Amino acid sequence: MTQKIETALAGIRYPSVPEGLYEPIAYTLSAGGKRLRPTLLLMAYGLYRDDVEFALPAAIALETYHNHTLLHDDLMDQADVRRGRPTVHRRWDANTAILSGDEMLILAFRHMLRQPVADQGRKDELLRLFADTMQEICEGQQFDMNFESREDVSEAEYIEMIRLKTSVLLACALKAGALIAGAPVRDTQLLYQFGEKVGLAFQLQDDYLDCYGDPAVFGKEIGGDIRCGKKTYMLISALGRADGRQREILLSRNVEHVLSCYDELGIPALCREKIDTIYGEARQAYDALPLPLSRKRALWEYAESMMNRKK
Amino acid sequence: MTQKIETALAGIRYPSVPEGLYEPIAYTLSAGGKRLRPTLLLMAYGLYRDDVEFALPAAIALETYHNHTLLHDDLMDQADVRRGRPTVHRRWDANTAILSGDEMLILAFRHMLRQPVADQGRKDELLRLFADTMQEICEGQQFDMNFESREDVSEAEYIEMIRLKTSVLLACALKAGALIAGAPVRDTQLLYQFGEKVGLAFQLQDDYLDCYGDPAVFGKEIGGDIRCGKKTYMLISALGRADGRQREILLSRNVEHVLSCYDELGIPALCREKIDTIYGEARQAYDALPLPLSRKRALWEYAESMMNRKK
Repeated sequence: MTQKIETALAGIRYPSVPEGLYEPIAYTLSAGGKRLRPTLLLMAYGLYRDDVEFALPAAIALETYHNHTLLHDDLMDQADVRRGRPTVHRRWDANTAILSGDEMLILAFRHMLRQPVADQGRKDELLRLFADTMQEICEGQQFDMNFESREDVSEAEYIEMIRLKTSVLLACALKAGALIAGAPVRDTQLLYQFGEKVGLAFQLQDDYLDCYGDPAVFGKEIGGDIRCGKKTYMLISALGRADGRQREILLSRNVEHVLSCYDELGIPALCREKIDTIYGEARQAYDALPLPLSRKRALWEYAESMMNRKK
Repeated sequence: MTQKIETALAGIRYPSVPEGLYEPIAYTLSAGGKRLRPTLLLMAYGLYRDDVEFALPAAIALETYHNHTLLHDDLMDQADVRRGRPTVHRRWDANTAILSGDEMLILAFRHMLRQPVADQGRKDELLRLFADTMQEICEGQQFDMNFESREDVSEAEYIEMIRLKTSVLLACALKAGALIAGAPVRDTQLLYQFGEKVGLAFQLQDDYLDCYGDPAVFGKEIGGDIRCGKKTYMLISALGRADGRQREILLSRNVEHVLSCYDELGIPALCREKIDTIYGEARQAYDALPLPLSRKRALWEYAESMMNRKK
């Protein structure tokens, strides 16, 4: 699946001029990554039809859109590196990042426009789904920025933020794939729910593994989020339960102290429980999908691999 | 017409949260301006049908998109003021300008999606026209940025840049209005050509009036473009004809000296001729429109008012 996506991305011919506009786009889209969103879209399409190439324009639309958000987020965060290479605003400049990022949003829209759908009457639904999702992601990004300067973010607010910032695009990918294939309405809804829950569980798992993962498997040093004071599910739920002394420790950014404070407050178990609950809801949506196991099993296995449960 | 547009813009209810995302958008869209693009769209629609409110979603889409470009252009240019008020990146900050600008592009897309068309089979054509136009405008903006650091820009390159940056959106507005109304294909093409030529003539006229306009009518001080070294049609065509001594004067940014050098080189007549030729082409497209004068006269009068020929 990933190979089909890489081939399609590599096959896009951008106009040769103006170079300053299209070079950073080709640079960004050739940097690899897991291609999670287009893969989910093609997998959902593949639940109903075998000619997965049919859904490639929409898959490319989602990947182009996702990379647009990374490009502009990196500029807003002043991040230097993305996937082992200088970010666009470092390799070129801020104005290039702004304009090439805008162009990627337009290109994403164009890719989605050229996506045929099995049932032509549902093209509008596909485009609206995409537009709604992009708007939600902008809102999620704004909430994330707002939370940086707040210390009273509630767990519910945090969950809603990551739902908007991360989950809805996975949900959109799955629903879009099914919609393009002409799947029944209820299936598209179940796949949306499945994607939403997997996305939440995935993000919470990421927060959890930053503290309790095996660095060899997780691929990052333990405690990175703590050191940079990032508001994660762990930190937010701990702050909500802390007394004055513990609060001070939690905000100290000292990995060892913060981790033992998490233990004191029972945060690891609480976080695991939350992940398991949400992942269980994803499983329910998956189980309710009225498709033979032989057809749908690969989707669950992909979710498992996303959750780092297999390596 | 403008009243209908202002009412529609004022009637948009943005989500109340996140404030940081939607406040700058409402701020930007309430700042007034000529509302040229939505007006042209409604006028083109009005050539064929009387219920102009029908085309308001598309009109609002174009105005929202246009303001997205202004917001991001102001950030790239580090401009402090727009329509007598602080620009978004000054009143808020750069990150707000980036994200709210992105959201405006998405909102523009959403407005266009909810636009019904008289002939449902042509909805795709409307969306593709919009997407193509947005991509061309990005390219125009990039060429404009490239030209700032070049002294060998040719007249043809300059004309192509302003066609992309300015004209295609006026052309798109007119074609979109006609398309929504179900106009014959040839009419939509003629309206596109008309908009493209009027847009070019309008921009060249703007360059001309900066040097030779009546400040009382033009509303700006004479020579502003010369003082800031802006590459206008006047400067580019003068540089193309200048010897070494004249070249030095032209790059001096001294209004009086540059203007007399323009006179030496016959630039004012050359520029007027170019404007007249292009405006004549706009007139040809207008004349070819197979509609009764009583129906189409208002469109020509609007073009005349844009060209500052009436005040």
